[in-house]
Amino acid sequence: MSQGLKRVTVIGLGLMGGSLALALRKAGLATNIVGCGRAELQRRAQEMGAIDSGSADACEAVAQSDFIFLCTPVETSIRLMRQIAPKLKPGALITDVGSTKQTFATAAQEIFGADANDRVLPGHPLAGRELSGLEHAQADLYLGCVWALTPLGKAAVASHRSLRQAIEAIGARVVYVTPEEHDRTLAYTSHLPQMLSTALAMTLLQAFGEGNPALQIHAGGLKSMLRLAGSDPAMWEQIAASNPENIAAALESFEGELRSLRESLTDPEFRKTFEQARKFAGFVKDDTSPNKP
Amino acid sequence: MSQGLKRVTVIGLGLMGGSLALALRKAGLATNIVGCGRAELQRRAQEMGAIDSGSADACEAVAQSDFIFLCTPVETSIRLMRQIAPKLKPGALITDVGSTKQTFATAAQEIFGADANDRVLPGHPLAGRELSGLEHAQADLYLGCVWALTPLGKAAVASHRSLRQAIEAIGARVVYVTPEEHDRTLAYTSHLPQMLSTALAMTLLQAFGEGNPALQIHAGGLKSMLRLAGSDPAMWEQIAASNPENIAAALESFEGELRSLRESLTDPEFRKTFEQARKFAGFVKDDTSPNKP
Repeated sequence: MSQGLKRVTVIGLGLMGGSLALALRKAGLATNIVGCGRAELQRRAQEMGAIDSGSADACEAVAQSDFIFLCTPVETSIRLMRQIAPKLKPGALITDVGSTKQTFATAAQEIFGADANDRVLPGHPLAGRELSGLEHAQADLYLGCVWALTPLGKAAVASHRSLRQAIEAIGARVVYVTPEEHDRTLAYTSHLPQMLSTALAMTLLQAFGEGNPALQIHAGGLKSMLRLAGSDPAMWEQIAASNPENIAAALESFEGELRSLRESLTDPEFRKTFEQARKFAGFVKDDTSPNKP
Repeated sequence: MSQGLKRVTVIGLGLMGGSLALALRKAGLATNIVGCGRAELQRRAQEMGAIDSGSADACEAVAQSDFIFLCTPVETSIRLMRQIAPKLKPGALITDVGSTKQTFATAAQEIFGADANDRVLPGHPLAGRELSGLEHAQADLYLGCVWALTPLGKAAVASHRSLRQAIEAIGARVVYVTPEEHDRTLAYTSHLPQMLSTALAMTLLQAFGEGNPALQIHAGGLKSMLRLAGSDPAMWEQIAASNPENIAAALESFEGELRSLRESLTDPEFRKTFEQARKFAGFVKDDTSPNKP
């Protein structure tokens, strides 16, 4: 275990945290994994072989660890970071898996001041998540995914390198980006698609109600467009609250494109738009970045 | 072949027509299949074993047939129906696979008058179509799909029953609906999702341009939301032109839902909307209608 993380704590034993513990275990990257979550989840995570021991108390859970993974929604992770900050072992590094990075990065700067870059390296693995909960955790969740890291400073720190190597060892591809770039980009590539799926579900609900047999008359595309609408509302509430300006800008831009399309339904412009969109969609489809379905 | 269609003509040798010919052949439902399309497509369709003979001339292609399948975009099918009407064998039945039904149904009434119900039974198989062309044709394209039929009158006709049985024999599930209900429903369940995917592609293109490395930072949901944007522009041009009022109404309704979501990004209302949408999406996902991915 030349590049191991030694003692690790995973706080939040859901899909992301559970999968991470399983992945670190499988890759032999940790000598010891402490899980923090409700007693019932600790018990199940131990049964699954994901963690060695558990604690419901975050401060207790991190006291001996070299790497702490916050695997809870954004606002919860900020609250927990504030709580565990005084209890960290010297040299320990905190990271997280939150879907937005600016509020977390700002909180880290506030909490740790000049030490922020040494103590915290925010992250975001872009792994599929319309399922949630420890019961769906799997060791290969991160295999082939992009894992964004958003450093708080320019200085290279040894623990940063160990974290990067561990992430790569579980099969993810690390991409460095600033917290600001991350949140603007994700507003378009993740938050916007999610809002469209949710608003599509609401539109159909208004038009047909639940259980209307007319709904069986649909093409295969409907289910793929509604898949994201099944995502966890609690997680998305926190994402929206932590990135509202970028999301609103992406939505407004989309609203403009959709209005143009609506106003050109019987125009030659319509086909041109479809041709441009098809070309672009082909580009995204053919890109070489690994990506989970 | 107790319920066979005897002599069949398939006009339009693309994904839909090619797959239909292959499916009828595989199920042993036709004694003879004539294909109508460009010489090159006729040749390839014969090589694939989809058709017995071919003709580039629609009138010649239908002269001996009992069942004629128009497998071209809506407006093309209307033009062809007008052209072949005087050349039909007595008792022959025309059907089509067009994505909208009102303009086709109205044209059939105009062309055939009191005989419309005997001569034409419009149809729409809801099979996946973001790929197009004979090269993607497959005998099982219609297996498990819903196939809408929109009769022009109330009277039962023997050829209608034969058509229904043939459709069921190739594995599709027939649903009867009026042309008006069909087009209103599809505006929500098919045309709206398509417009969202296309407008999403345009929004990303505006925000990033093509080939921007920032685009690699995306979750799995993006590709599924962009899949439909790869659909055939020529087909969608005709769908939009043949159902603009219903599509515009569906888009306006969606725009209202999206605006509400945008205005509630940091409100408690946001989570309630996500919870409702998730419940509805689960209902559509769990419905028992067979459906191709």
